[in-house]
Amino acid sequence: MFNFIYHNPVRIVFGQHSIARLSDLIDRNKRIMLLYGGGSIHANGVYEQVKNALKAHNVVEFSGIEPNPHYETLMRAVAQAKEAQIDFLLAVGGGSVLDGSKFVAAAVCFTGDDPWDILAKKAKVEKALPLGAVLTLPATGSEMNGNAVITRESSREKLAFGSEQVSPQFSILDPAVTLSLPREQLANGIVDSFVHVIEQYLTYPVNAPLQDRQAEAVLLTLIEQAPAVLNQPDNLDARANLMWCATQALNGLIGCGVPQDWSTHDIGHELTAFYGIAHAPSLALVLPAVLRHQRSAKAEKLVQYGERIWQIHMANRDQAADAAIERTQNFFRSLGMPVSRHSTGITDLHFAAIADRFGRRGVRLGEHQSIGKDEVLQILQLID
Amino acid sequence: MFNFIYHNPVRIVFGQHSIARLSDLIDRNKRIMLLYGGGSIHANGVYEQVKNALKAHNVVEFSGIEPNPHYETLMRAVAQAKEAQIDFLLAVGGGSVLDGSKFVAAAVCFTGDDPWDILAKKAKVEKALPLGAVLTLPATGSEMNGNAVITRESSREKLAFGSEQVSPQFSILDPAVTLSLPREQLANGIVDSFVHVIEQYLTYPVNAPLQDRQAEAVLLTLIEQAPAVLNQPDNLDARANLMWCATQALNGLIGCGVPQDWSTHDIGHELTAFYGIAHAPSLALVLPAVLRHQRSAKAEKLVQYGERIWQIHMANRDQAADAAIERTQNFFRSLGMPVSRHSTGITDLHFAAIADRFGRRGVRLGEHQSIGKDEVLQILQLID
Repeated sequence: MFNFIYHNPVRIVFGQHSIARLSDLIDRNKRIMLLYGGGSIHANGVYEQVKNALKAHNVVEFSGIEPNPHYETLMRAVAQAKEAQIDFLLAVGGGSVLDGSKFVAAAVCFTGDDPWDILAKKAKVEKALPLGAVLTLPATGSEMNGNAVITRESSREKLAFGSEQVSPQFSILDPAVTLSLPREQLANGIVDSFVHVIEQYLTYPVNAPLQDRQAEAVLLTLIEQAPAVLNQPDNLDARANLMWCATQALNGLIGCGVPQDWSTHDIGHELTAFYGIAHAPSLALVLPAVLRHQRSAKAEKLVQYGERIWQIHMANRDQAADAAIERTQNFFRSLGMPVSRHSTGITDLHFAAIADRFGRRGVRLGEHQSIGKDEVLQILQLID
Repeated sequence: MFNFIYHNPVRIVFGQHSIARLSDLIDRNKRIMLLYGGGSIHANGVYEQVKNALKAHNVVEFSGIEPNPHYETLMRAVAQAKEAQIDFLLAVGGGSVLDGSKFVAAAVCFTGDDPWDILAKKAKVEKALPLGAVLTLPATGSEMNGNAVITRESSREKLAFGSEQVSPQFSILDPAVTLSLPREQLANGIVDSFVHVIEQYLTYPVNAPLQDRQAEAVLLTLIEQAPAVLNQPDNLDARANLMWCATQALNGLIGCGVPQDWSTHDIGHELTAFYGIAHAPSLALVLPAVLRHQRSAKAEKLVQYGERIWQIHMANRDQAADAAIERTQNFFRSLGMPVSRHSTGITDLHFAAIADRFGRRGVRLGEHQSIGKDEVLQILQLID
């Protein structure tokens, strides 16, 4: 395996009724900004639980953080946090609220000219407001890492940044809050988590058998739990298992010392930016195309993946790899993901513009940096 | 699964040549006490690497921490650290040095009457000196947790304590430092790590499938890597994999939200205390006896363990459980662990005294607290 540094100081508080612990997790003397999205936390009782726990605290609110959180919205939160001299951010929501709050935490303390540089120029985040989270949607893994993805509406750009400074001090994971989620969001969470694992696992072997098996552990559990998550609305155990899988998929552990390939996410982000397609469906469409395009580079791991995850045992390695990709695609479809780009309104209208964007950024994707502008275009055309 | 809190802020710095990073990992203005054992770090070059990295630092040394570190020795380090106004401890060695240093870190700051109370009365550790570690022996997992086991020579007691306060700030894991280890110590490390996993896994199912698979990931990798670790002295990859397995076996992750049963360790510690038998051989002797005694309480997980780890597929569940226990025992023996208590000089001379000790402590062992004084005696008599 490669050399690595692993450091994940997020305190996970997991289980039913754990939102009440907020009262002890945040110092009484902090001026807290509670950040959330729309009305769902009012409807599902999470808002009330949070407010009850923080009765003795000083709390101001900022609501309206949208899915694929907008830079423009977040900069309003930054202004409000500065004005109110906020010194603790509490993000209550799914990955968008958490990611947005991480950006706010960094931007409030940013001393450079333009906070957009944190995203566009990877300006170093030297300092950030302390942050805590109450997770309502298992999917992005944002609750246990220092990463965030932010969208700039005005330029249709969706960009990521990462810093230890914006790792939550704590994240509360109460699986009961997921009981009210619509089926579609649960399915999206399963797909997002699954693809997070794949991007750290389906590359080339570097003799890191523990990391491989830890990745496979998450994949197998997601596949196993998916039917109960989607079809048994009261199955709290299944929701708890999904929630822990989603966290473990992207807290850095399975990525220790192994090559990674985030091209499905990177290309998927552009489908979201250009066509408005949601994150998980974009991944479900792009991943099979990436795997088909990279089949020979990923052959060894694709065969291992097929054997260990899908029990595919074929002498012909190309056929085994193809079968593994097909099983993956069928799994996504069984969760209600789109079966084709046509069904989601994706035409080739913007393909050249998307490929150009990667060309202009000068970023080459894939574990071997072998995916440039031309290859992105080929991958887009391979989407079913 | 059960509710849980997971918080592990240890920074792992993993890979060849990583000891040189010490110079940046510890502030220049700290007064460091370098704690180690005997001469092995002189022989294998680790001492020199550490001293080179800390050329610009202020370092005093404390050597002579023995295997199963003695309270009496450590209290000398405490006195020396207080006198020299030490404000950072650097433990360089295996689990004994790390555990001993954790106790020193806590005892220096202890404000109660007698630091022995930290062990004997579980006195709360409110504060401790900051601590870092350079690991030389993959086995105990001490490099990524806040636990320690200390022996009091005068009373033949081996007791544990745990506190977040004594988690290392960082641990450096360079697999190259293990290349000079004798075969026996490597085998001990494999067994110790394996049993750490088993104690968190072989209990009863609580619908925690991800934790199960994460545990199985470590077990399968230990079994797979063992031959290369023991028979290929230059195989750095295998050493790296063993090292990461040992850390993952006891950093709290696989124990999240699941019942645990530390009776093999607890009983094994007494074999060490009364017969002077090393830690890993004691575990290798005790575990099969515990599993046979608890076969029906652990039936469901024993069958799962047999299927997933040893590919045992039998219709009769008792036979499947027995076969799984036998395979475990054979695995230990293949690593050079003792085949019977007679071969290690363990007679039943002290069995009653050991059982009495558990009776007096009023501690009942096992995931159901079903193992009291009488059951400990039965288990001791079941040791082959």
